[in-house]
Amino acid sequence: MAPSGTKKNILERLEAGEVILGDGGFVVALEKRGYVKAGPLTPEAAAEHPEAVRQLHREFLRAGSTVMQTFTFYASDDKLENRGNTQSFTGQQINEAACDLAREVANEGDALVAGGVSQTPSYMSCESEEAVKAIFKKQIDVFINKDVDFLIAEYFEHVEEAEWAVQILKTSGKPVAATLCIGPEGDLNGVSPGDCAVKLVKAGADIVGVNCHFDPETCVKTVKMMKEGVEKAGLKAHYMTQPLALHTPDCNRQGFIDLPEFPFALEPRVLTRWDMHRYAREAYNAGIRYIGGCCGFEPYHVRAVAEELAPERGFLPPASEKHGLWGAGLEMHTKPWVRARARREYWENLKPSSGRPFCAAMSKPDCWGYSKGHPDLKQQKEATSEDQLKAVFDKAAQSQ
Amino acid sequence: MAPSGTKKNILERLEAGEVILGDGGFVVALEKRGYVKAGPLTPEAAAEHPEAVRQLHREFLRAGSTVMQTFTFYASDDKLENRGNTQSFTGQQINEAACDLAREVANEGDALVAGGVSQTPSYMSCESEEAVKAIFKKQIDVFINKDVDFLIAEYFEHVEEAEWAVQILKTSGKPVAATLCIGPEGDLNGVSPGDCAVKLVKAGADIVGVNCHFDPETCVKTVKMMKEGVEKAGLKAHYMTQPLALHTPDCNRQGFIDLPEFPFALEPRVLTRWDMHRYAREAYNAGIRYIGGCCGFEPYHVRAVAEELAPERGFLPPASEKHGLWGAGLEMHTKPWVRARARREYWENLKPSSGRPFCAAMSKPDCWGYSKGHPDLKQQKEATSEDQLKAVFDKAAQSQ
Amino acid sequence: MAPSGTKKNILERLEAGEVILGDGGFVVALEKRGYVKAGPLTPEAAAEHPEAVRQLHREFLRAGSTVMQTFTFYASDDKLENRGNTQSFTGQQINEAACDLAREVANEGDALVAGGVSQTPSYMSCESEEAVKAIFKKQIDVFINKDVDFLIAEYFEHVEEAEWAVQILKTSGKPVAATLCIGPEGDLNGVSPGDCAVKLVKAGADIVGVNCHFDPETCVKTVKMMKEGVEKAGLKAHYMTQPLALHTPDCNRQGFIDLPEFPFALEPRVLTRWDMHRYAREAYNAGIRYIGGCCGFEPYHVRAVAEELAPERGFLPPASEKHGLWGAGLEMHTKPWVRARARREYWENLKPSSGRPFCAAMSKPDCWGYSKGHPDLKQQKEATSEDQLKAVFDKAAQSQ
Amino acid sequence: MAPSGTKKNILERLEAGEVILGDGGFVVALEKRGYVKAGPLTPEAAAEHPEAVRQLHREFLRAGSTVMQTFTFYASDDKLENRGNTQSFTGQQINEAACDLAREVANEGDALVAGGVSQTPSYMSCESEEAVKAIFKKQIDVFINKDVDFLIAEYFEHVEEAEWAVQILKTSGKPVAATLCIGPEGDLNGVSPGDCAVKLVKAGADIVGVNCHFDPETCVKTVKMMKEGVEKAGLKAHYMTQPLALHTPDCNRQGFIDLPEFPFALEPRVLTRWDMHRYAREAYNAGIRYIGGCCGFEPYHVRAVAEELAPERGFLPPASEKHGLWGAGLEMHTKPWVRARARREYWENLKPSSGRPFCAAMSKPDCWGYSKGHPDLKQQKEATSEDQLKAVFDKAAQSQ
Repeated sequence: MAPSGTKKNILERLEAGEVILGDGGFVVALEKRGYVKAGPLTPEAAAEHPEAVRQLHREFLRAGSTVMQTFTFYASDDKLENRGNTQSFTGQQINEAACDLAREVANEGDALVAGGVSQTPSYMSCESEEAVKAIFKKQIDVFINKDVDFLIAEYFEHVEEAEWAVQILKTSGKPVAATLCIGPEGDLNGVSPGDCAVKLVKAGADIVGVNCHFDPETCVKTVKMMKEGVEKAGLKAHYMTQPLALHTPDCNRQGFIDLPEFPFALEPRVLTRWDMHRYAREAYNAGIRYIGGCCGFEPYHVRAVAEELAPERGFLPPASEKHGLWGAGLEMHTKPWVRARARREYWENLKPSSGRPFCAAMSKPDCWGYSKGHPDLKQQKEATSEDQLKAVFDKAAQSQ
Repeated sequence: MAPSGTKKNILERLEAGEVILGDGGFVVALEKRGYVKAGPLTPEAAAEHPEAVRQLHREFLRAGSTVMQTFTFYASDDKLENRGNTQSFTGQQINEAACDLAREVANEGDALVAGGVSQTPSYMSCESEEAVKAIFKKQIDVFINKDVDFLIAEYFEHVEEAEWAVQILKTSGKPVAATLCIGPEGDLNGVSPGDCAVKLVKAGADIVGVNCHFDPETCVKTVKMMKEGVEKAGLKAHYMTQPLALHTPDCNRQGFIDLPEFPFALEPRVLTRWDMHRYAREAYNAGIRYIGGCCGFEPYHVRAVAEELAPERGFLPPASEKHGLWGAGLEMHTKPWVRARARREYWENLKPSSGRPFCAAMSKPDCWGYSKGHPDLKQQKEATSEDQLKAVFDKAAQSQ
Repeated sequence: MAPSGTKKNILERLEAGEVILGDGGFVVALEKRGYVKAGPLTPEAAAEHPEAVRQLHREFLRAGSTVMQTFTFYASDDKLENRGNTQSFTGQQINEAACDLAREVANEGDALVAGGVSQTPSYMSCESEEAVKAIFKKQIDVFINKDVDFLIAEYFEHVEEAEWAVQILKTSGKPVAATLCIGPEGDLNGVSPGDCAVKLVKAGADIVGVNCHFDPETCVKTVKMMKEGVEKAGLKAHYMTQPLALHTPDCNRQGFIDLPEFPFALEPRVLTRWDMHRYAREAYNAGIRYIGGCCGFEPYHVRAVAEELAPERGFLPPASEKHGLWGAGLEMHTKPWVRARARREYWENLKPSSGRPFCAAMSKPDCWGYSKGHPDLKQQKEATSEDQLKAVFDKAAQSQ
Repeated sequence: MAPSGTKKNILERLEAGEVILGDGGFVVALEKRGYVKAGPLTPEAAAEHPEAVRQLHREFLRAGSTVMQTFTFYASDDKLENRGNTQSFTGQQINEAACDLAREVANEGDALVAGGVSQTPSYMSCESEEAVKAIFKKQIDVFINKDVDFLIAEYFEHVEEAEWAVQILKTSGKPVAATLCIGPEGDLNGVSPGDCAVKLVKAGADIVGVNCHFDPETCVKTVKMMKEGVEKAGLKAHYMTQPLALHTPDCNRQGFIDLPEFPFALEPRVLTRWDMHRYAREAYNAGIRYIGGCCGFEPYHVRAVAEELAPERGFLPPASEKHGLWGAGLEMHTKPWVRARARREYWENLKPSSGRPFCAAMSKPDCWGYSKGHPDLKQQKEATSEDQLKAVFDKAAQSQ
């Protein structure tokens, strides 16, 4: 594995004012390409179909991503026991393969490799701080061994668990980023975004922000609140956001998980490239300098972020050789009225129709709002029983 | 290149009652991945980034496609002169590379390779039958040389030009399929779907149908009309449909090209996998046995078609190892209310919201409806001039 | 009762090129005011609450209506037996009171009085031509006795029954208009609008057209087809349209009755006054000279029609003294940004939002499409039984 | 004029636990009937067309209203100078006529008469407390003279001005209600609903709440906040709400005035009768006992409120003799599938479609948010000049 030492590290880059572009959500993108099973969402494809994972890394690199996140989401041995992982790779095999793929592609450009840990079933099932921290410790061993460039504690619904993760990650000596999957209402225990951010910085995080669960608009708003909190507390941090590439104005505190369309009917919510321009500009204007994506982001979404911020960054990404800015490629279309759409003003103001006259604009989210400790969240290995299902329907009927 | 002789050919398969699954739209899928430039839409990626094209072929094969179409759309030398093709590959280089990639992946499974020709700028600019046919002749030389399994004349707006194409393709001795990009209103000269189909069969097509421009519902309806026409004329044919993976209830005769969202804001219209189940069933019930896709189809869309027709075909595609039927993978989700979505009834009846409360359900298409011979369709190499642009806006204002 | 003899009759006016404005739908307007019971829809208010009926006539007269239709819809003795008619007025009492009210208000301006008959339960229950005609005969006796100015056979779903009605009305010697409640697909037996119109003219109708069941756009389109049919047949007629003031792009052949929102949740579909301007212009351009309304029309809708056609008619209606054209009244609003809406261009281009993000744009109509003779349409006096209800739900479930 | 002394007064009724039903918005209802001019919105119809005003009072009484508000909105002499009031009635003539009409109809049932004052152009133009109070004083003289039953200070955007009004009304010795046209964000100076309510109670209001500007859901939410504020302050009051009959989820602090559809394209937002049932129940559950309506309320809306609360009130309103509860009237419809809609469950769960596929669900409000003292709100008698209009457009363009 190539050494990463010759590149500037993530904090040096941020201090120097560089805009860091994250990548997109591998789990969702690879599910659509046929390599990840929705439900378990385990990343055995890193070992099983490395060409597919490598290709997606490459597309994000071409699109302008400065960070390759290792495809190690949910790669713990207990998670891997189920049906998605049909060839039965071990957690270690998958994690190592994922690190190698990320490094290989990162080195084809000027990108850094980041290893990540996420919230654990153990925390949700109320295990002890020691037990939860031991899980994080085991996960970062492979990252340290493979010498990733920095670490991300991401996708936490409870800030307490994220603090524990940061404390463990911090022991690696590598830069640490921490993102919660929360919106303006705060974490599932009601801790406000500002307070969450202060806790994370105090725990040792160099970069704080949010990822997943909400759309770009909501995420930028939430990170703004985090920044205000941190500044009010007299602390310092860098800020990042890795939102969904989905419009979710109808979410409650639990984010898009609770939308009835999750996870198999979210298509109408996908952001256009022009929505991404707006996101990139708003994130930048909010002082966020690590700007990435999560579920729903495809390579062209990252490219749109890169194109919007090209003036600030000083360059366009490689994939822009196949993209005219603001639709300029249409100047050569065969029909004159399509050529007339080769204008920024046209795309910036267009309100795209859904083509679905029998569907509404917004959904009522399932309203559960459980947080850690609720018995319904106690994790089980078995599929839902008939009785459990009935209990869910009964609750849903009552809440309407 | 491996010989294709040991496989049953497309007509033998159709005669035997096999359901043939096409693949999806490479141009749009690779545009989003960063390898095709919207506007020119030329396929230089076959030579320039073969790994990306190979990977997409592989994903469709995994998803269940029985046909690999060579990625040769618009690969004529005149088209390749412009900015998308920055490394200046020749048409021949690209076409040959595309044939090799399709064959390589087809042989990883039981798929056939199809070479395609499409409508020409020359026809639209009113050149002679001889001139237009010479273009088709030149294009199929490379397909014959690379020994593709069959040929497709696809994406024709005027049946006359498609007949010319079929006549030339027929000289190859290979099976010939022909699809128009028309809806129930017929071709741009107003020839009805039934009459179009009769003309194509008489010209020598073994398989007739439609591709692109309209959503699955519209395409199935149109092919039904073709079938009625062919049967009324006492002729015989096989039927195919390769629709958009986009909802387009608001299209006029010209299809999705005229929608204001084309081509950069079509996201809200993308079909879900459950929409695809419906499409597959309706196409099958209409007697269509070659069922594929065009722009907007991603691998998981083809997989959904394959899953719906698994009872008829007798098997699931490889990629279904990463997909529980009708959301079954959710049985293992961490939240009980998401587990409750692991039911066919749930997904079949869900009407997915757009998440876009400021957008409408339908758009008014630009209403041009030009057909061959109209001066505005005379093709030019230069980008649209200011004067031309103004003329377009003036016309648009008048037509409102 | 004042004589009507000094006024020009309806045919003289139409021959002279006058634009006749109908009134709106009394049944729906008075239901909202609390005087008509939805379900039975009987007009006992004419006798029971004459001040309410008189007031509505007056409002339509002020709005520009040239015709006062007697409020006699469904005023047959058999219909009147049920719960809406709590004071038990006889059919004759109601019909006479309705004629007197229409005449009283008509004479306050230059309006004509029209008496109307509609389709009968007897026809739907397959009674004989003689039996059905006897019903019409009985109904017009009171109109003749009260000397109305002309007669309208309206709201027929089967042209055959309308022909019978016209034949009877014609015996009165008064001008006869006939309108079907059909759309472009024709009557419930599939007779095309053109053929329907020819049959009505041949039966003796002076004025033909459509009323109720569909929105203005659909109605104008249907009357155009009628006009083409009549002209092709070498016949002559005047044309009228009295559409819903509701948008119904999602209707099938049975019209708005089959929409799930009928009759108690149609609010979001109500036309704005600006929609009415468009209707008036399109109807006029189609050669229609008797332009009125049906269910959903309120006085301001008729006023909008009158304002759009003021240039052709040469005058504004009385109620325009309380209405600035194209929002001009806003010039004096207290807020400057509301004053900025005092412009035709503003209102003409506005696409009004529904304020209902959880609702769709279109509904799937119940798909029954029964026509005369179907056993489910056999009329009964009793409320639906549990068994009948179950049968309906079973059918609905099958048709989805 | 008949004495009101024999009836229990409003406070006695509320203390006794009676549910008081207000009436609806006369200005908007009479605009649609042709008697009020939108823009000026002056109530000269009370003198000019008393039959129309009397009829509307009567319809609300039949629908269940316990209060007849005098139709005296904006009836000050300066307001009456402009074009709507073509016959030039004086303010005094109009106010007296309005009181007589309200009393006449109130005495046909068991209703009370309320006289109202609203916010003044003088306050918005920054005139002194004395000047503003003098205006209120002059207005209530006629109410006292005509012996109305109680007084309402309604439609205030700034609580300060409402306090001044309450102080003046209180001098009459009659019960005083006070409603602001604010939402959860508070008055235009940012005073919270809770604080506003406390101020009003301290100024002497017996009943506090909100009216106009927002939909029922928002208004109930706002009154809840008021109630919490009052209770927290250890004070006591009765609560009332008179919302729009329009859905306005997209409003900002200024309410529906700033929606682009105001005031001439609000049709798609009108509440159904079933929406009204929900409103009535929610208001009641929130402890509100004076439940009425404002712009958009038609008689059938008030009837729906009365029907929902019939169990609590012990009786149905007179107009329910023409209305089956929850669609029961449809049991006798001619078509079986329409009869199947005669069920509470059906209407309660129906999500009504807009029939407008080219329109969105929500609008972006004009974002002005001016409050008292802003130069653009200085009132003028002249229509907007071209220069002023240009300034508005420039600001709008900047704010996008």
